[in-house]
Amino acid sequence: MKIISADSSAAVLNEKFIPLLIVATAAVQVSPPYREANSFLSEPVFASADNGHEVIVHEAELCRDLMAKVKADVVHLDMSLGAIPLEELSPIQFSNMKISGRAKQHLLKILPRLRKVAGEITQKYGVQVLAIGKESIPVRIAELTSGANAILYACDKAISEKQSILLGLPSKCQPKVTENRVHLYSLITAEHDITGYAEDRNGILKKVNINELLNPCARGFRALRITPK
Amino acid sequence: MKIISADSSAAVLNEKFIPLLIVATAAVQVSPPYREANSFLSEPVFASADNGHEVIVHEAELCRDLMAKVKADVVHLDMSLGAIPLEELSPIQFSNMKISGRAKQHLLKILPRLRKVAGEITQKYGVQVLAIGKESIPVRIAELTSGANAILYACDKAISEKQSILLGLPSKCQPKVTENRVHLYSLITAEHDITGYAEDRNGILKKVNINELLNPCARGFRALRITPK
Amino acid sequence: MKIISADSSAAVLNEKFIPLLIVATAAVQVSPPYREANSFLSEPVFASADNGHEVIVHEAELCRDLMAKVKADVVHLDMSLGAIPLEELSPIQFSNMKISGRAKQHLLKILPRLRKVAGEITQKYGVQVLAIGKESIPVRIAELTSGANAILYACDKAISEKQSILLGLPSKCQPKVTENRVHLYSLITAEHDITGYAEDRNGILKKVNINELLNPCARGFRALRITPK
Repeated sequence: MKIISADSSAAVLNEKFIPLLIVATAAVQVSPPYREANSFLSEPVFASADNGHEVIVHEAELCRDLMAKVKADVVHLDMSLGAIPLEELSPIQFSNMKISGRAKQHLLKILPRLRKVAGEITQKYGVQVLAIGKESIPVRIAELTSGANAILYACDKAISEKQSILLGLPSKCQPKVTENRVHLYSLITAEHDITGYAEDRNGILKKVNINELLNPCARGFRALRITPK
Repeated sequence: MKIISADSSAAVLNEKFIPLLIVATAAVQVSPPYREANSFLSEPVFASADNGHEVIVHEAELCRDLMAKVKADVVHLDMSLGAIPLEELSPIQFSNMKISGRAKQHLLKILPRLRKVAGEITQKYGVQVLAIGKESIPVRIAELTSGANAILYACDKAISEKQSILLGLPSKCQPKVTENRVHLYSLITAEHDITGYAEDRNGILKKVNINELLNPCARGFRALRITPK
Repeated sequence: MKIISADSSAAVLNEKFIPLLIVATAAVQVSPPYREANSFLSEPVFASADNGHEVIVHEAELCRDLMAKVKADVVHLDMSLGAIPLEELSPIQFSNMKISGRAKQHLLKILPRLRKVAGEITQKYGVQVLAIGKESIPVRIAELTSGANAILYACDKAISEKQSILLGLPSKCQPKVTENRVHLYSLITAEHDITGYAEDRNGILKKVNINELLNPCARGFRALRITPK
């Protein structure tokens, strides 16, 4: 079973470790044994962290774009609604779900656009789009892939703005930088062999210093202090 | 303190990773430092995954059978009800517990049979039977032990039916196959030294190929593709 | 950002692994990358495990004492109330919080004393005291630091009382004893580089045997059997 999935991750933090901007979105295609992306699309977003729910629409669009390039049997979106197909998702159903009032409001706002994109995917490629979220390994791989690419985007930003950036990484992962790649390894139990990566085609990594620290106010989260050389 | 415990685990999955059949039940006896079974009884069950609650009765019976062979000071069942003794468990108490309506119905259905077996154990051996479930390390060791034996049962089935099987493993564990043993190691934090095992007395492991993959739709779960050679 | 934090941990257990006495309290000062204490104060408490909520007041006092010696920009207490500043914490607010009736009663009882200590800290040093609890890495470092020191206190007790002690460790950690130090390493995912330590200035460690085992009735918790030589 080949799966396409998307997620957004990594955040520019202020000095009190409060998230300001979501940095990147990535769509990935994965196949057995489901350990990393076979291919992916990644984009810098730098969207306000307050509009986290809005990026889901963009994630669905990026899945659609990747679908045009590589095959998949199903699409996984980062919405934890019990793996329900998006076409079956209606405002009436929300009332039966264990989600907060605020989350429901956000969902209602983006649902028409989400269903439109999901409908296009299902019509054109005959595959279902599932709101599976945190139960999905492909969603986690998308999270790590967008996080790895977010490191490159943040380095770029630090260089062009000539100032250091505090970058919050996705939950429970740790980067490893090689010559021209950034790998982001999951630290979650039973995910020790799952990773996302980004390719540094422009030699950005050589122009910065990167120091890793723990986010003291959010257990499980690590951050990078990225400083232009 | 010596503890006897039982659990059922591992599932035959369809190609969409949906569980069809629960594969094995095992009862274990453990003693300090509580890392693996001193002795165990294991049985293939291949019971419908929809009747998961029914296997608990069989688990209690297997504890009783093991009790006849080796000593224990207490019995742990895989029911997460706050370590309450089964003799104190009554339908009235369920109303005070944080369990879903569906779980309550299932419990009510099996409770008379469960209490009968627990009563036999307490009467004959003078030890309590606790509904401790997920808080119990011996229950975890029973889960890993039944999972390790399930791998052998699934290999047997794949060989005799001459077709490959997709076997879902218990949560957060990973198998290691040696010459004539299967060990199932826990990947849960702070359980790195806990394991279950099965002995391959009939040379089954040499007749199959085993490939490990991640269950893409259930984070924390791994699966094995078992193919007859 | 420099942070001062405190926590109490480790418990003397009976032979059924039931906690009887909380062993130690420690306050720590940590700074980036937030991996261990720069400096700390530690005290044996051996307080009844039934009065767990009472130790929080002492934890706040120990933060105040450490504040008099080393700088910090904020204080983290082990109360999981969403990082709310203690000065804003009022009985009225409790009604909006998702905490049990019993926890509310305990909180109400200690709140006047807690607010008094927090007020002293804020007035004298101009820093906020946050009820952040389990989201805080410094609280975890305080937990591991008090746990490491608790091992020494328990060894001391075992020697002076000439009998073995079963010591329950903090959640998900493992001790490593070197010549004259005890390190307590976190086993939680993404905390592999976090540790607390204690210095054995009196050569206590050479006078005992220490055996590690798993707490069979509380998953994630390990225990030490400490026996005088």
